[in-house]
Amino acid sequence: MGLADASKRILLGRKLRSSQLGETLLPKRIALPVFASDALSSVAYAPDEVFIMLSIAGTTSYVFSPWIGVAVALVMTAVIASYRQTVHAYPSGGGDYEVASVNLGPAAGTTVASALLVDYVLTVAVSISSGSQYAAAAIPFLSGHEVLFASALVVVLMALNLRGIRESGSYFAVPTYLFMVAIIGMSLYGGYRWAVGTLPEVESAALDVVPREGFEGPLTQFAMVFLLARAFSSGCAALTGVEAISNGVPAFKRPKSRNAASTLLMLGMIAVTMMLSVILLAREMGIRYVDPHELDRLRTAAGDPMPDGYDQHTVIAQIAGALFADFPPGFYFVVTMTGVILVLAANTAFNGFPVLGSILAKDGFAPRALGSRGDRLAYSNGIVFLAVMAIVLIVAFDAQTTKLIQLYIVGVFVSFNLSQLGMIRHWTRHLATEKDAGRRRKMQQSRVINAIGLAFTAVVLVVVLLTKFLEGAWITILAMTAAYFVMRSIRRHYDRVAKEIAAEETDKVLPTRVHAIVLVSKLHKPTLRALAYAKASRPNVLEAVCVSTDPAETDRLLAAWDERRIDVPLKVLYSPYRELIKPIVDYAVEIRQANPRGVVAVYIPEYVVGRWWEQLLHNQSALRLKGRLLFTPGVMVTSVPFQLQSSAVALEREDRQLTRVRPGDLRRGRVTSEEAPDRVRPRPPRQR
Amino acid sequence: MGLADASKRILLGRKLRSSQLGETLLPKRIALPVFASDALSSVAYAPDEVFIMLSIAGTTSYVFSPWIGVAVALVMTAVIASYRQTVHAYPSGGGDYEVASVNLGPAAGTTVASALLVDYVLTVAVSISSGSQYAAAAIPFLSGHEVLFASALVVVLMALNLRGIRESGSYFAVPTYLFMVAIIGMSLYGGYRWAVGTLPEVESAALDVVPREGFEGPLTQFAMVFLLARAFSSGCAALTGVEAISNGVPAFKRPKSRNAASTLLMLGMIAVTMMLSVILLAREMGIRYVDPHELDRLRTAAGDPMPDGYDQHTVIAQIAGALFADFPPGFYFVVTMTGVILVLAANTAFNGFPVLGSILAKDGFAPRALGSRGDRLAYSNGIVFLAVMAIVLIVAFDAQTTKLIQLYIVGVFVSFNLSQLGMIRHWTRHLATEKDAGRRRKMQQSRVINAIGLAFTAVVLVVVLLTKFLEGAWITILAMTAAYFVMRSIRRHYDRVAKEIAAEETDKVLPTRVHAIVLVSKLHKPTLRALAYAKASRPNVLEAVCVSTDPAETDRLLAAWDERRIDVPLKVLYSPYRELIKPIVDYAVEIRQANPRGVVAVYIPEYVVGRWWEQLLHNQSALRLKGRLLFTPGVMVTSVPFQLQSSAVALEREDRQLTRVRPGDLRRGRVTSEEAPDRVRPRPPRQR
Repeated sequence: MGLADASKRILLGRKLRSSQLGETLLPKRIALPVFASDALSSVAYAPDEVFIMLSIAGTTSYVFSPWIGVAVALVMTAVIASYRQTVHAYPSGGGDYEVASVNLGPAAGTTVASALLVDYVLTVAVSISSGSQYAAAAIPFLSGHEVLFASALVVVLMALNLRGIRESGSYFAVPTYLFMVAIIGMSLYGGYRWAVGTLPEVESAALDVVPREGFEGPLTQFAMVFLLARAFSSGCAALTGVEAISNGVPAFKRPKSRNAASTLLMLGMIAVTMMLSVILLAREMGIRYVDPHELDRLRTAAGDPMPDGYDQHTVIAQIAGALFADFPPGFYFVVTMTGVILVLAANTAFNGFPVLGSILAKDGFAPRALGSRGDRLAYSNGIVFLAVMAIVLIVAFDAQTTKLIQLYIVGVFVSFNLSQLGMIRHWTRHLATEKDAGRRRKMQQSRVINAIGLAFTAVVLVVVLLTKFLEGAWITILAMTAAYFVMRSIRRHYDRVAKEIAAEETDKVLPTRVHAIVLVSKLHKPTLRALAYAKASRPNVLEAVCVSTDPAETDRLLAAWDERRIDVPLKVLYSPYRELIKPIVDYAVEIRQANPRGVVAVYIPEYVVGRWWEQLLHNQSALRLKGRLLFTPGVMVTSVPFQLQSSAVALEREDRQLTRVRPGDLRRGRVTSEEAPDRVRPRPPRQR
Repeated sequence: MGLADASKRILLGRKLRSSQLGETLLPKRIALPVFASDALSSVAYAPDEVFIMLSIAGTTSYVFSPWIGVAVALVMTAVIASYRQTVHAYPSGGGDYEVASVNLGPAAGTTVASALLVDYVLTVAVSISSGSQYAAAAIPFLSGHEVLFASALVVVLMALNLRGIRESGSYFAVPTYLFMVAIIGMSLYGGYRWAVGTLPEVESAALDVVPREGFEGPLTQFAMVFLLARAFSSGCAALTGVEAISNGVPAFKRPKSRNAASTLLMLGMIAVTMMLSVILLAREMGIRYVDPHELDRLRTAAGDPMPDGYDQHTVIAQIAGALFADFPPGFYFVVTMTGVILVLAANTAFNGFPVLGSILAKDGFAPRALGSRGDRLAYSNGIVFLAVMAIVLIVAFDAQTTKLIQLYIVGVFVSFNLSQLGMIRHWTRHLATEKDAGRRRKMQQSRVINAIGLAFTAVVLVVVLLTKFLEGAWITILAMTAAYFVMRSIRRHYDRVAKEIAAEETDKVLPTRVHAIVLVSKLHKPTLRALAYAKASRPNVLEAVCVSTDPAETDRLLAAWDERRIDVPLKVLYSPYRELIKPIVDYAVEIRQANPRGVVAVYIPEYVVGRWWEQLLHNQSALRLKGRLLFTPGVMVTSVPFQLQSSAVALEREDRQLTRVRPGDLRRGRVTSEEAPDRVRPRPPRQR
């Protein structure tokens, strides 16, 4: 080590940490609800989509619905098995992005990132649209105003996240567990009544569905397969959100990876159970469910078209309505919890977005500022962007889950595929060096699991692309491509800058002299402080400079200067047209030209005020001047602040901002722990 | 003089001036059109308003129209005579505001300023609304879309002024002289045809006007007087804009005051001639003109109501239409020039607004930044504000000049009155000290003129308030009051701050020591430059500080530090939760606490880039940190800029901004004279 050894590595860690954020790791029983809402919430719309697709050929094809459920469950099992490998191999929380970047290179990583970004937007749009359908089922008044209601919900979520929600385990645990109780309880009750033979029929059971034009007769084999494939790929919406745990490993209690893996397994089992139960019950209870755009294909028992204004309720709402026909609280409980879990799922995206942003920022694919926790502005921009895009989608697609679902999933499966491929590479790479037979066997096992996962997800991706491309998936792919290129060009910019600023040996040359100028407008405390500070830094030349826009005022300044016997020369720059900036910039350039190896230090006294309107009244010219001087080579700009009394207001506000909760903190294992007593640190007495 | 004598008052004036704005003084023939558009343009709507008011009692009362014209002309004469005194006594261009402030105190000055501010908004709204009526007369397609068209015009004007119009004499001279040619030419031609007995009738001559309800029979004397008073006060709209010249004296060629006074006289004569001609011709040609809201009071020759969709054209359009029935180019010329002059009049407000703002800023009634020419942002905000308010009025009053005119004039006459009162005080004060008999006589003469002016304008103000208060003038008064209180509280804020920062003897104490910390994230050119600059300013303690958010990266930095043998100790602040700002602020506070009489100098290396999106990618954390450190007592913040190659783009943009034309430059005697050869100064070679 060099000269710097003495004071280097003096760890201030302990001391500073106490004033910062606390850390709370999640036990499994809390981690499950924290990470599950997205994955579980899809049970609210995935079965509906399966029935809608099958309805195209009429109700006879409903016979396939359990098989489609089973197929989705199979894929889910494969994916979960794969991700259990990921959480062990990559416990740092980088998730698919990290796996793809490390094993397949930055292009694959960026692709995964753009897929995830687009999917966050879609998660919000789909969940909130579906949620507003549930709200309409419970509150008839909302029927027909779903777009407005959904947009308002997004705005509320945005506002809450901008404000910073103090997330806690119970915030997620209570509604998520209640949702599980609602769906599984309803299923068990339905199963019991099925067993005893009193299973009621849903409200749509008496209806008939006319097949879509072209699907009336017996279908060709190809048409049938295509239909099932579409139903299957819509059902695969149930898989979104499964990857959330792989991004949240650092938030788990130790042993982190093992706990994450078992939570993942639990999540998978619950999700599969719920989805299969709902599909089975719905079929047994005689559901008839068509695309809400094609309600005219529904027929009453008498064969007449449905009356105008008929409202088709979601599958879960219909089941709950029939099962709890005599017990309305049961119905409202199920529908409400489903709505709540959908909103929580949307909130997941608001949490995941900034977290992904900070990871991308670290790798130079997003603005650096996103990488530091303190940057309120960048976080806010991300949240607003997410909300605006989601609202655009909701409005464009009329808050119809069925339409939005066509855009969904593509992104998720792109990242599933790249991630599985990356994991296979990961194991292959490690197998090349690993000698221990036991570990080799385990690795080979893992590789097989990931290969199976890849096989399944690749098939699904192909099916999804084939069946959904023209229906809307092209929009997703377009958006992903755009995101990809934006990220690549940000990275290219950072690389170019890094090259431009790489240090060279010649850069250590010291400036030969410092010529300091202190800007003076009046002779008051801020000016005197700036003069004192400038003098304390002992420049080779020190002078005060004043831009004269009004001769009378300048004379007063000169008189005051003499009267106080200030021992710094005052130079007057005349500016007959009341420009402030150009005379100073020109003067700085002149000094620098006279002495090209010196440096010009410009001291600007600044008022520090507390309220926004006060800020409008001060420092505006100083701000512009600073901005302009930065472009002048050989100049450094020093702000000498003078805190006015009102600045205390702003100081408190700033400090509140710094310690505030950010979206996504909980799932990264960070909370501002109110219970941590050492957080409350007495503020040092303020001095002038 | 004190110690500072040596280098003080080294005048850089000459040298700097060459790179700044040029100055062009206006000869009378150019000054007239520059300042006349507002005053002359009222001939486009004032006669209409006179006829509308008289119509209330039916066409018989039209017999009074010439007398009302004469009354307006009388007031105009008195006002112009008064302002000729003002331009001699106050040649600095402060206008009514200065006269009122100096002679009646700041409260009166602020009142005048708020009246002027509100009137600028109304000038835009009224002129553009009237202009869009003329456009509708010439382009039937626009009929019924006046609000949209007028709003679009305001937006265009706003955009032009934000962009900065390079105003020149000819820009005003050509259309203003053409407008005079159009109106006076039309009047002469009309007079000729009248003399030879071939004067045609206007399109509305065959119509009849039903008096408004309650005005059918012979009127009581009181009702008649009130009616005439209303017609008169609407006609007084012709006086707006007369004060413009008193704000523009500095722009005149020498002898400034004398030239301004003769231009004022010329302006008054032309305005009176035009207005009287139009009123006389209109009456002779049988005009029938009612409030556009009461078209149902018009009757055809047969006594039937008018057909739906009847479009009542403005008075000048009707006269021109009839006189040039066989020569359409004549009609289009008159209507087009009238429209153009109205737009120019609206533009006047866009010029006057920032000029007034800068005067108010100098006196502390508006944000200081408005006072310096360089502040693009403040100017822009003013322009946008003006445009938005004008559009609000246009939309709220449906682009109907008749309604808007009820709000107009109040402000003008408030400032006329205060200004005349101020002038009387001015002469009285000077008479108290003046001994010379000749000069005393002249002053007494002037005082009489101003007293007559006050008498006239006071009567008009009372008439205007009585006849218009309920019709809309209350809105103006409300807005004026609001503006008044905003200005007073800004001034109070500045006064409070001035008291808080007033210098005391103790303020000259020097800090005992400077503890400099240089923020380091990586070891690259910007960091090395910051280190070199910091070292050159020889602080008592110098250390580099790095916030560690990622141990691996910190280790790399430490290694690079050793490798390069940098002789500044590097202190690492650990921040496990990736906060950047709080650790640094806390560290600075700690240093300062250990040494309360010392000062902490924080050096921040900054990238200077050129494009807006590049700015998003850099310095965001530095910006936040600087903002936060300003609140920490005893800290000064130094930005050490490192100009990346792309910064050249921004430098050019900034320089363009600095030398750009601002609205109002021309009428303050400032232009960027392209012809001034010394403006083009070779940029000093850029150095790193």
